[in-house]
Amino acid sequence: MSSLFPTNNASYVTSFNQGHLALPPAKKYIVVTCMDARIEPASQLGINLGDAHVIRNAGGRAEDALRSIIISQRLLGTREIAIFHHTDCGMLTFSTPMLRDLVKKAEPGNQTVSGLVDQIDFQTFSHLEESIKQDVQYLKEHPLVLEDTEITGWVYEVETGKARQIQ
Amino acid sequence: MSSLFPTNNASYVTSFNQGHLALPPAKKYIVVTCMDARIEPASQLGINLGDAHVIRNAGGRAEDALRSIIISQRLLGTREIAIFHHTDCGMLTFSTPMLRDLVKKAEPGNQTVSGLVDQIDFQTFSHLEESIKQDVQYLKEHPLVLEDTEITGWVYEVETGKARQIQ
Repeated sequence: MSSLFPTNNASYVTSFNQGHLALPPAKKYIVVTCMDARIEPASQLGINLGDAHVIRNAGGRAEDALRSIIISQRLLGTREIAIFHHTDCGMLTFSTPMLRDLVKKAEPGNQTVSGLVDQIDFQTFSHLEESIKQDVQYLKEHPLVLEDTEITGWVYEVETGKARQIQ
Repeated sequence: MSSLFPTNNASYVTSFNQGHLALPPAKKYIVVTCMDARIEPASQLGINLGDAHVIRNAGGRAEDALRSIIISQRLLGTREIAIFHHTDCGMLTFSTPMLRDLVKKAEPGNQTVSGLVDQIDFQTFSHLEESIKQDVQYLKEHPLVLEDTEITGWVYEVETGKARQIQ
């Protein structure tokens, strides 16, 4: 599908007029959200090009985003973090031991695969709103996150397109 | 700035008609790219809602994305990965020791801060195209990435809006 990027991008380039935007995010905030295919932060939250850092990973987990958040805050001036998890998230459907087993069973007896996958915490969760509260708390308490950071937590509903704040 | 999300999102919801989209990405691919504020993968690459997983972190680094990639491939059926790094990336402007020093100097004598930041590899790079080739190679060789995965590497130019393939 990446074979379509050149054509799609050529169309974008014809109307591109944002080459002047600076490296630091103009609105000084970070959105952390899931990699889910039904999420598109720019249009769903009204983020203009140049405004915010957007960090995305499986689940929109804060711990996984920590390296990026430190860089964003210390070097590029962001001072607010909004965490979005979403309904019907894949992370609600499995557990770390389940995925480890699945990967090992795909290559039985492969000790390299087995050793590597056992080191990974897949950071799944079993309750949507709790996972958001946990991630807000994780960042609020983390010694490497700036103390004066405003941190909020949100649910995005893939069924309705609605975003609602819970923290 | 998250205070603007409810108003912005209410506008999005009025024209939302994509509530039927399924959890697995329809086009079975992953885009890995930077958190940079000037990057908006959906419009810049022509990714339709529901088509692809989008993973974003500081630099668009593959190693940082590994947990998410494994989940995407093993549980949600993706079979292609496109890695995008970009011109004028913040990751070209510092090194891990520099950022560790900066964080420690902000809280002199704080052993907790010092101990935690010394454990983080910030995954900076000093050459844009080399960093993309390294990340493509990293995934091609990684025992936990499926062997038949098509992996491509791209530069996105923030000055022109252009995307060009280099691997």
